[in-house]
Amino acid sequence: MRRFPREYCGIFGVYGHPEAAKLTYFGLYALQHRGQESAGIVASDGKEVHEHKGMGLVSEVFTEQILNALKGHIAIGHVRYSTTGSSTLRNAQPFVVYHLGKTLAIGHNGNIINAYQLRRQLEEDGAIFQSTMDSEIIVHLWVRYFHLGIEEGLAKALSKVKGAYSLVLMTEDTLIAARDPLGFRPLCLGKLKNGGYVVASETCALDLIEAEYIRDVEPGEIIFINEKGMQSLYLPKASRCAHCIFELIYFARPDSQIFGQNVYLFRKRQGYELAKEVPIEADFVMPFPDSGNYVALGYAEATKLPFEMGMIRNHYVGRTFIQPSQSMRTFGVKVKLNPVKELLKGKRIIIMEDSIIRGTTCRTRVKTLRAIGVKEIHLLVSCPPHRFPCYYGIDFSSRGELIAAFKSIEEIRKYLGLDTLYYLSMEGLLKATHIPKEHFCLACFNGDYPVSLEKGFSKDWLERQ
Amino acid sequence: MRRFPREYCGIFGVYGHPEAAKLTYFGLYALQHRGQESAGIVASDGKEVHEHKGMGLVSEVFTEQILNALKGHIAIGHVRYSTTGSSTLRNAQPFVVYHLGKTLAIGHNGNIINAYQLRRQLEEDGAIFQSTMDSEIIVHLWVRYFHLGIEEGLAKALSKVKGAYSLVLMTEDTLIAARDPLGFRPLCLGKLKNGGYVVASETCALDLIEAEYIRDVEPGEIIFINEKGMQSLYLPKASRCAHCIFELIYFARPDSQIFGQNVYLFRKRQGYELAKEVPIEADFVMPFPDSGNYVALGYAEATKLPFEMGMIRNHYVGRTFIQPSQSMRTFGVKVKLNPVKELLKGKRIIIMEDSIIRGTTCRTRVKTLRAIGVKEIHLLVSCPPHRFPCYYGIDFSSRGELIAAFKSIEEIRKYLGLDTLYYLSMEGLLKATHIPKEHFCLACFNGDYPVSLEKGFSKDWLERQ
Amino acid sequence: MRRFPREYCGIFGVYGHPEAAKLTYFGLYALQHRGQESAGIVASDGKEVHEHKGMGLVSEVFTEQILNALKGHIAIGHVRYSTTGSSTLRNAQPFVVYHLGKTLAIGHNGNIINAYQLRRQLEEDGAIFQSTMDSEIIVHLWVRYFHLGIEEGLAKALSKVKGAYSLVLMTEDTLIAARDPLGFRPLCLGKLKNGGYVVASETCALDLIEAEYIRDVEPGEIIFINEKGMQSLYLPKASRCAHCIFELIYFARPDSQIFGQNVYLFRKRQGYELAKEVPIEADFVMPFPDSGNYVALGYAEATKLPFEMGMIRNHYVGRTFIQPSQSMRTFGVKVKLNPVKELLKGKRIIIMEDSIIRGTTCRTRVKTLRAIGVKEIHLLVSCPPHRFPCYYGIDFSSRGELIAAFKSIEEIRKYLGLDTLYYLSMEGLLKATHIPKEHFCLACFNGDYPVSLEKGFSKDWLERQ
Amino acid sequence: MRRFPREYCGIFGVYGHPEAAKLTYFGLYALQHRGQESAGIVASDGKEVHEHKGMGLVSEVFTEQILNALKGHIAIGHVRYSTTGSSTLRNAQPFVVYHLGKTLAIGHNGNIINAYQLRRQLEEDGAIFQSTMDSEIIVHLWVRYFHLGIEEGLAKALSKVKGAYSLVLMTEDTLIAARDPLGFRPLCLGKLKNGGYVVASETCALDLIEAEYIRDVEPGEIIFINEKGMQSLYLPKASRCAHCIFELIYFARPDSQIFGQNVYLFRKRQGYELAKEVPIEADFVMPFPDSGNYVALGYAEATKLPFEMGMIRNHYVGRTFIQPSQSMRTFGVKVKLNPVKELLKGKRIIIMEDSIIRGTTCRTRVKTLRAIGVKEIHLLVSCPPHRFPCYYGIDFSSRGELIAAFKSIEEIRKYLGLDTLYYLSMEGLLKATHIPKEHFCLACFNGDYPVSLEKGFSKDWLERQ
Repeated sequence: MRRFPREYCGIFGVYGHPEAAKLTYFGLYALQHRGQESAGIVASDGKEVHEHKGMGLVSEVFTEQILNALKGHIAIGHVRYSTTGSSTLRNAQPFVVYHLGKTLAIGHNGNIINAYQLRRQLEEDGAIFQSTMDSEIIVHLWVRYFHLGIEEGLAKALSKVKGAYSLVLMTEDTLIAARDPLGFRPLCLGKLKNGGYVVASETCALDLIEAEYIRDVEPGEIIFINEKGMQSLYLPKASRCAHCIFELIYFARPDSQIFGQNVYLFRKRQGYELAKEVPIEADFVMPFPDSGNYVALGYAEATKLPFEMGMIRNHYVGRTFIQPSQSMRTFGVKVKLNPVKELLKGKRIIIMEDSIIRGTTCRTRVKTLRAIGVKEIHLLVSCPPHRFPCYYGIDFSSRGELIAAFKSIEEIRKYLGLDTLYYLSMEGLLKATHIPKEHFCLACFNGDYPVSLEKGFSKDWLERQ
Repeated sequence: MRRFPREYCGIFGVYGHPEAAKLTYFGLYALQHRGQESAGIVASDGKEVHEHKGMGLVSEVFTEQILNALKGHIAIGHVRYSTTGSSTLRNAQPFVVYHLGKTLAIGHNGNIINAYQLRRQLEEDGAIFQSTMDSEIIVHLWVRYFHLGIEEGLAKALSKVKGAYSLVLMTEDTLIAARDPLGFRPLCLGKLKNGGYVVASETCALDLIEAEYIRDVEPGEIIFINEKGMQSLYLPKASRCAHCIFELIYFARPDSQIFGQNVYLFRKRQGYELAKEVPIEADFVMPFPDSGNYVALGYAEATKLPFEMGMIRNHYVGRTFIQPSQSMRTFGVKVKLNPVKELLKGKRIIIMEDSIIRGTTCRTRVKTLRAIGVKEIHLLVSCPPHRFPCYYGIDFSSRGELIAAFKSIEEIRKYLGLDTLYYLSMEGLLKATHIPKEHFCLACFNGDYPVSLEKGFSKDWLERQ
Repeated sequence: MRRFPREYCGIFGVYGHPEAAKLTYFGLYALQHRGQESAGIVASDGKEVHEHKGMGLVSEVFTEQILNALKGHIAIGHVRYSTTGSSTLRNAQPFVVYHLGKTLAIGHNGNIINAYQLRRQLEEDGAIFQSTMDSEIIVHLWVRYFHLGIEEGLAKALSKVKGAYSLVLMTEDTLIAARDPLGFRPLCLGKLKNGGYVVASETCALDLIEAEYIRDVEPGEIIFINEKGMQSLYLPKASRCAHCIFELIYFARPDSQIFGQNVYLFRKRQGYELAKEVPIEADFVMPFPDSGNYVALGYAEATKLPFEMGMIRNHYVGRTFIQPSQSMRTFGVKVKLNPVKELLKGKRIIIMEDSIIRGTTCRTRVKTLRAIGVKEIHLLVSCPPHRFPCYYGIDFSSRGELIAAFKSIEEIRKYLGLDTLYYLSMEGLLKATHIPKEHFCLACFNGDYPVSLEKGFSKDWLERQ
Repeated sequence: MRRFPREYCGIFGVYGHPEAAKLTYFGLYALQHRGQESAGIVASDGKEVHEHKGMGLVSEVFTEQILNALKGHIAIGHVRYSTTGSSTLRNAQPFVVYHLGKTLAIGHNGNIINAYQLRRQLEEDGAIFQSTMDSEIIVHLWVRYFHLGIEEGLAKALSKVKGAYSLVLMTEDTLIAARDPLGFRPLCLGKLKNGGYVVASETCALDLIEAEYIRDVEPGEIIFINEKGMQSLYLPKASRCAHCIFELIYFARPDSQIFGQNVYLFRKRQGYELAKEVPIEADFVMPFPDSGNYVALGYAEATKLPFEMGMIRNHYVGRTFIQPSQSMRTFGVKVKLNPVKELLKGKRIIIMEDSIIRGTTCRTRVKTLRAIGVKEIHLLVSCPPHRFPCYYGIDFSSRGELIAAFKSIEEIRKYLGLDTLYYLSMEGLLKATHIPKEHFCLACFNGDYPVSLEKGFSKDWLERQ
């Protein structure tokens, strides 16, 4: 099965609803696409803090009884996808600690690039660690600056942290949301009908619980919400933004607003741009479901070609699927997607895809299509080739896995067995965003990293702990 | 959540593969849409029969270890959806019994309408029952005629049975497949690459395991496959067929061939017919996912209107979702589908739907769309109104639940809050099938039941047992 | 670990308590020593019957929620130990069937020796079987005679059955208890404080729920308890009884009354008889816990020797204990029992044991004692040698497993590594019972089977099904 | 059910066996009586450390697969019983942390009385805590002194800790065992046949895995075992010992050697002393099983009175037993113990008990005995009355729960409904120990606390965190 590039996490927080944990449950549900490995919720009634975390989907980790025990009007939640192999409960979030009579909880989305240095320094100062999570580093830093006060202490701590982070934090009586100064990962603020507040990785979580979208948490902003209302502190202003463009291209749900743009309409615009750049003669356009859906709609609309859904997805593919025996190895790919032979046979088709990481899944799918007699296969990718690893929270960072880092487009086309392979140009992509180029992190395409790595950076080091 | 009309079951059988149970696992996986309540596999190595059944999805019921214990080259499997409340392991299939040194197993898809009479007669003759399943009746009848031989005995037994049935059966050394004389439910025959045979409710199961589709099991045919090869017996020929047209309209997977037709292309033709019958001026066409997808594609193609996917499906909705509290009641509908506000606001839209049973889910969805500012909503249904209950295995049989049985189309339109409501005509529907009208059971539309109910028919009676 | 001879089952029934299922839960709890493999309860409120069965201990199979769902004032329950390998839920009891509008449930303790013939005959008459349980045969027979009425029909059915059975049965409105004419297995009748009735395998179950012991169900008696009160039918009177003497020696709990005798006091009397027959000079007397406890107390009392508890039992030995690796193989025996070195070293000890079946566990224990420096080991067994298999429900029936069937006592003594090995004489044993010899089945000692086996008897045959 | 005073934990460690985790599994099994709430094992192959912890019994928490994954020749394990309500996985041990490239694990038995002060100080220095366990405090202290080296750093850290602790610790390559300077809790050292080392709370764990007992870890000793062999460091010598006498009286298994004494023989000597102090005329002596067993044996031996086991224990009482309904409330006590009516009726009996904490269970048992007609009940307790709470790890510390703290012995006798109530004198108790008085902590009897509490000590404070 294709190894999708996946972001680490989705985060959610509520202040001011009598069933804050239940709202958080629904919010995480809407954010489940951002992490399926573990889920956790921490809730407080202003005094006592309760938590529950577990491995698996939100719907597996929580029961009615568990949610009822997570009492209180404040809650934060987290869903996690790990790319590192440390898939243990130990690394599930939110992370909860005790310090000087206070209970602190934190959920993190992103990746800190000076984690090694910070951790080393903290350990040299006597700190012990119980996980390999960035969250644990942040909370260690926070308490070091508690003498400045909870609020200023957190601002001071975050000023030491480099990299990508959208955070939800909690004390017994306060909900906190924070976003790094470059705004790598999304984080939005909403208002409940009863006046309470919500923060979430994506607006689709606000929609589900009928919260009104107010605005994004600003890059560099730390919002504190408690009895006294909502206040913000600001980290030193950065000269630019570094929104992860892959959130728009792939991660975010199409019904979300991200970085001020509706994801569905953005993806259609990618299709328009592709139609301008590479008009192809074919019988119809189709996506590899579901990620290519909206680009394909846009391309079809612009080219007046028919849109079809030629590969049928099995909605019951679970996480515990039993592997086929050696003799059945090729079944694997069809477990998830089955082509509609009668539609595809003898046809010239254009397929839309959001990205090609390693190329192995794509190659198998193309083979399957050839086997049932598809005549021509033209693959259009809705962004430039991925040539550089991501250090800010996306899982295509590992060595040698990016097919475009080592092969030319023509070589990739041959490897995949395509008639045509075309990548949307950087210009076309940026045009579709309606956002200035300098607001994005485009490092995975052009190697231009907005926050430079320090000597000794090595996520691996942490993993070996 | 909308109460979909659901068929009872999916069935699958293999003869002649060293890992028959594992093939069956994959086959059931592809048929999971036909039943999510329980799953079971029975396998034989020619001498010993092993079975495993459980509540839940195929991927939940079976583990590698369990599959490995189901040794042998013959296997049958079953997935079940129950509409009756008797959701217990007791009613899971395949059903296994012992008789005179033989082990018999049976899996059933359909509904026997003289079940009450047959069961009563059997009980008066001394039979005891352990379930409320039709399968148990069939196997009781079968052993009564064992003196005629296994094969002729089964034929004799089935000649007593009225109604809809597609069956897989098994003895220690023989795989058996049977279909009622009117062919209500689908059942197809395939061939494995190694020469073995497969039977399955739908061809999508053949695709997954790379079996070649040979032909459908014929109405009234009983196929026996064992060491001696494949032989058929035939029940007395019926003067007509009674294919369940709702299999084409709704149940079957779009990538399956059913009753000789590809389901995807058939549904597109429904869209063409709708376009002919009711051309509407609008901004675009969209389905309620996923069932309306293909009709909408056909309609859009025919009318040249854009096709959009304006409601986003959450793929992580599991079976154990926690219900919203009273104050959160309206969240429920959005858990599954969230509209793309930015796309839909101020638009005139045409929505495609395969059927309206009770109308409650549809009504809530329309409300949600109105709430985000959709300007006009035109709903097109891809078949005539459902006015009559089904006695042959579909779950919209209960009294008073069919909105079209009591309301006029105009009343339904008002109830649903639509600008336009249109149902495809019977002629249009049949034209799309490419099959003569007399080959279908259309009872749910016109009340013309191909097999008449006998006095005293009452599924309820059995359920009360 | 020593393979204890184990009886198949414990049974329990209640009539006339609003929480009949909960009482049954407690009753089964007290009878758990009679079967740890599966447990089940069936309850009725006079109209609807509900059941729950599962693999494992009573405390594992039932939850508060499950018990609450088993509504009604009538209930029967069953715990099972299987010796045959068919440890599946399929064979768990009570067994429930439907017939002509009635629901029938049955729980069985014992073994039918004409099972093969009865089953064959029933199958030839058209019956199908779903298990290998004797219970299923009995209920098949019962419904064949339903035309005689529920009561007379059951009497007629049981008149066809040969062998050992104590039964609890149930219809929607009636609790039934029955015992074979020779009274192999125990079954007692008790009265609740509220006037309701209870039947149970042993009186310890009455004690727990504070029911008063009234009398034993008589051999050959069938008791029906319902709205009309309590009535009895009687099977043709047998000329003798055949109480299983091993119930007294080993199976029954010491706090139970069985066959009119208190088990604790009986076992002490075995000790007195042993003291008379074989007075040994030693430092003290001790049991292999817990089965030899009371014989040892009696022997110590009679001989004035000190009583010690020189091997300490680990109370946390569960059913899922992980096996030691090859290099740790000898740990196994100490997991359950650890000798008190400081007490035992250099001592001459007399050990009491209730029986030696295969001798392997005993041998290992003797080795362990020698290894810590015990000087003399004299083993006294509280009954004669087991030389013949049991066909009435005890698990030492298998071929070649009885060490005393093939070895002389002197050979056994050597094999076990003992200084002395002595078996209580038949006369001593019977004297301890206070019951005439002809009331017992002594077949396992003398091969004199009270009910003769018919040609073709083979439990194996059934198991192969 | 009687609330037994329970110690917090059992600990175990292995160095130098290829299957160290499996040995630890067996060792914890033998120590299960010291904690049934959670169990954990951490293992290392010298480089990589793996851990597994879970709620429940050792046999429930570990599977063969899990043990196989805990690779390496070093392992430590822990079983825990919590008295504080914090029964969560978060508090399960061993506790594992990362610091400066090292992995540290710790398992603790005992209670630190300056925990509040230490923790407060650590937090003020910037530490964060993730649990309420003393272990976490110790490891925080340890790393603060890492600059002194692993060994000296630990010694320095422990010199700051006041109270009772027996510890097993581990780094990637070293097994460490430590015991507080007063030797409150037991800890012994053993040798494997292959030359490897074992440490365990009690010698019964050595017996099971066939390790030879070498000696106790000395009070104030810290043992380091690694490639370089075994070395010891010593904390400043204390002027006395403070062995917990309740380990001998109640906690330890009778087959263990504790503080140089065999527990079984010690308990018999308590019986001798009781016989000297209070000879009573009665029909026989019996224990409340199992804790009074050995005292009763000693008393019976000394007085020549018969020994009986008049209350039968149900060995299948699990942790998840369903509570009786209101109307069945009195069943509760009989679930665990059932008296043998026929033995007890009309008798004058002496019952041996190890302690009376709250008196409620004892009272119910006496009532039950009276109800079946016991004529005289004389209760002898094998130690003086418990009048003071324990701060060193035993769970009868809570306020107002000790019946003897507020009532005179005569008042207790009346409350319990006894004919006689007698407590063994302090002199008698100490005489039975064969150890000088000043080597024991007798605080629960006389309020003389060997380590004084500091201002602000409050376990509750920690629990509230």
